[in-house]
Amino acid sequence: MELLKRQSPGRLIVLGFAGVILLGTFLLMMPVSVREGQQVSFINALFTSTSAVCVTGLIAIDTADHFTVFGRTIVALLIQIGGLGVTSVGVGLILLTGKRVGMKGRLMVKEAMNVGSLKGMVRLVKAVLLMTLCFEAAGAALSFLVFVQDYPPVQALGISVFHAVAAFNNSGFDILGGLRNLIPYQNDILLNLTTSGLIIFGGLGFLVILDIGRKRSFKKLCLHSKVVITMSVILLTAGTLLLKATEDISWLGAFFQSVSARTAGFSSYPIGEFTNAGLFVLIILMFIGASPGSTGGGIKTSTFFALVQATKSAATNQHCSAFHRKLPYEVLSKAFIITFLSMLVVCTGTFFLCILEPEYTFVQILFEITSAFGTVGLSTGITPELGDAGKYIVILTMFIGRLGPLTIASIWSFRPAAAARYSEESITIG
Amino acid sequence: MELLKRQSPGRLIVLGFAGVILLGTFLLMMPVSVREGQQVSFINALFTSTSAVCVTGLIAIDTADHFTVFGRTIVALLIQIGGLGVTSVGVGLILLTGKRVGMKGRLMVKEAMNVGSLKGMVRLVKAVLLMTLCFEAAGAALSFLVFVQDYPPVQALGISVFHAVAAFNNSGFDILGGLRNLIPYQNDILLNLTTSGLIIFGGLGFLVILDIGRKRSFKKLCLHSKVVITMSVILLTAGTLLLKATEDISWLGAFFQSVSARTAGFSSYPIGEFTNAGLFVLIILMFIGASPGSTGGGIKTSTFFALVQATKSAATNQHCSAFHRKLPYEVLSKAFIITFLSMLVVCTGTFFLCILEPEYTFVQILFEITSAFGTVGLSTGITPELGDAGKYIVILTMFIGRLGPLTIASIWSFRPAAAARYSEESITIG
Ligand SMILES: [K+]
Ligand SMILES: [K+]
Repeated sequence: MELLKRQSPGRLIVLGFAGVILLGTFLLMMPVSVREGQQVSFINALFTSTSAVCVTGLIAIDTADHFTVFGRTIVALLIQIGGLGVTSVGVGLILLTGKRVGMKGRLMVKEAMNVGSLKGMVRLVKAVLLMTLCFEAAGAALSFLVFVQDYPPVQALGISVFHAVAAFNNSGFDILGGLRNLIPYQNDILLNLTTSGLIIFGGLGFLVILDIGRKRSFKKLCLHSKVVITMSVILLTAGTLLLKATEDISWLGAFFQSVSARTAGFSSYPIGEFTNAGLFVLIILMFIGASPGSTGGGIKTSTFFALVQATKSAATNQHCSAFHRKLPYEVLSKAFIITFLSMLVVCTGTFFLCILEPEYTFVQILFEITSAFGTVGLSTGITPELGDAGKYIVILTMFIGRLGPLTIASIWSFRPAAAARYSEESITIG
Repeated sequence: MELLKRQSPGRLIVLGFAGVILLGTFLLMMPVSVREGQQVSFINALFTSTSAVCVTGLIAIDTADHFTVFGRTIVALLIQIGGLGVTSVGVGLILLTGKRVGMKGRLMVKEAMNVGSLKGMVRLVKAVLLMTLCFEAAGAALSFLVFVQDYPPVQALGISVFHAVAAFNNSGFDILGGLRNLIPYQNDILLNLTTSGLIIFGGLGFLVILDIGRKRSFKKLCLHSKVVITMSVILLTAGTLLLKATEDISWLGAFFQSVSARTAGFSSYPIGEFTNAGLFVLIILMFIGASPGSTGGGIKTSTFFALVQATKSAATNQHCSAFHRKLPYEVLSKAFIITFLSMLVVCTGTFFLCILEPEYTFVQILFEITSAFGTVGLSTGITPELGDAGKYIVILTMFIGRLGPLTIASIWSFRPAAAARYSEESITIG
């Protein structure tokens, strides 16, 4: 306990996620979780638990086919815990028991939710929990209208709640069975739009939703909200147009896949049949991902925005600005470093999976690794077929992707900032 | 003429390269350049000329099979002009005619060779021309010892000179015929080492070679030379080990391909038969490329070094330093921007080629585009089979790769630095 207290918030978060994943693995392997006649090996339970806690949605085994109602409830809980962030849940529990939240707890929520200040942390967590409940209840009600047409009411209710939790937390899990994801409902407008809505709001980030709720006017929003909303609209539009151009799918399908690739991971068409060009569009969307402070992954929309603005300012010799505000150097530098680390993770994962699984094409492997890193969960269908070593690589990639490569990289650092300063000297670049 | 004088150095360099490419295209289409019974279409002449001037070495048609001795001499001259840089050649010519080099000329050499100061520019260009001559003469003499065993002396001499020019300029062209590149000599130690030596020295950059010649001790070298030499050693070693691990080739072959992928583009083994993992290693080596101020392409070794150092310093909370010197912010920022622009170019080229040529695998297309962008010239063999639109995309990629994406991006900018400064506000990243 003393040892735990001395760790940095970053390390505690990593340990917390790992702990929840191992607990989930254990629960999913219990006989009460597994359907009669099915086997769930350790690696597949670990894969499912990691995928749920990291809100990814890649599946080694079909959720509905292998797990009982109890098992599926465990999966939904793991998704909800992963989506809110282990620490927010912890703080929420402490609040429920009436205890005061200490400085350490506040620091951890700050790190996990990526907010700038410690003020109003407790009120924030309360608002987040309430907002999650509202969105998921509304989503479940609308989904119920669709599922009740095909399933008996009680089962439809279960599917609807599971689906709303999965969609708002951008997790991409389904419990329709047979590895079909949402393909049976590819032309159902209500379900497509409900799911898209849950995904988009879940992927904007809690702070942005709170900002919208408070200001109710685009002009008054803070810079971060403006950037995130603008980028989301641009990426959704570009993704829809490019997918419609490269694939033989409906406009609804192109829109839904464009929304979903940005981190949710539901598929209404079989991704394995997409062309190279379409898969590449999805890979880039998955790599960029959702917005910071949301349940989604990837390098984040605001990071991508900073890259574009920094590059534009370098090419045109102007100040780096956005919406009449200058972007600070630290933001640009952090954006580039996160992108570089993310590329390293994706490239390393892809390289090792290429060696381990030579029978798959390069684009299939790059797609699966990017999906894992962006905690997206879209799949060309190779994940269930991977060997154990390959599954461990995907598990590790999901874990790094959910916590962020910079958090992972910085937990190894013990040293305080160096005192010695060197004299400056330039090197040639490019 | 007045219009030309008002242009920025960057624009003049772009125009100069384009002019030389078009002149080369015209010369290669003349009957005296083309062998009897062969046809050279406009697109294939343009492709060959661009590939030569951009010192890439991708080929749409085999050089020896299609061109006469006159045509091959044109190709060698285009490679030499492209390797030295159009402006260095221009300044060299002015020097030969005894005229004084004006401020504009010096500025252009500064831009083209990526040197920091205008001092000693003329002496520098003289040294560069002399050095090129020495390395190429030595390389041709050593290659002659190999080729004379298989060809009559006069032809062997021609092949040797062509090969030395191609290797020192990192161009990857061969005139052995039948699209075989250097595969017939894959086990010839002398030719492999001679070629590797020419490639490595050509790829270090003239300034580094001059620095080594002057100081003769690693410790006394300037920071840039230290960085470039260290990175070259690391990349060569890592490349050799990874290729030996993934492919069924000899150590000599792994070393040679590792050297060659860093921008030269010779192949002693058929690249089309490599595994996905091996191709991916080559793609990453090609993307990083050679050192700045050399004849090679890619984002450059020093750029990659800056990325790694900046990331390391962010993860460990230390100053960004190298060899006891602090790296300036402008250097790190330029490194990230160049890398981002380069990724954009490679991704855009790959996307369009995926659409145009759906019959090829994604890794083949990514490989070919990265090879074109890094002006490497390695090929899985698809380039000669591409349609005209595909060839234009590869041509454009080579052109952008040779001049650098930042130079290309900045030629569109007319505006001076903005006077208005905005107040600073942060956005969340990652
Ligand atoms: K997901
Ligand atoms: K080359």
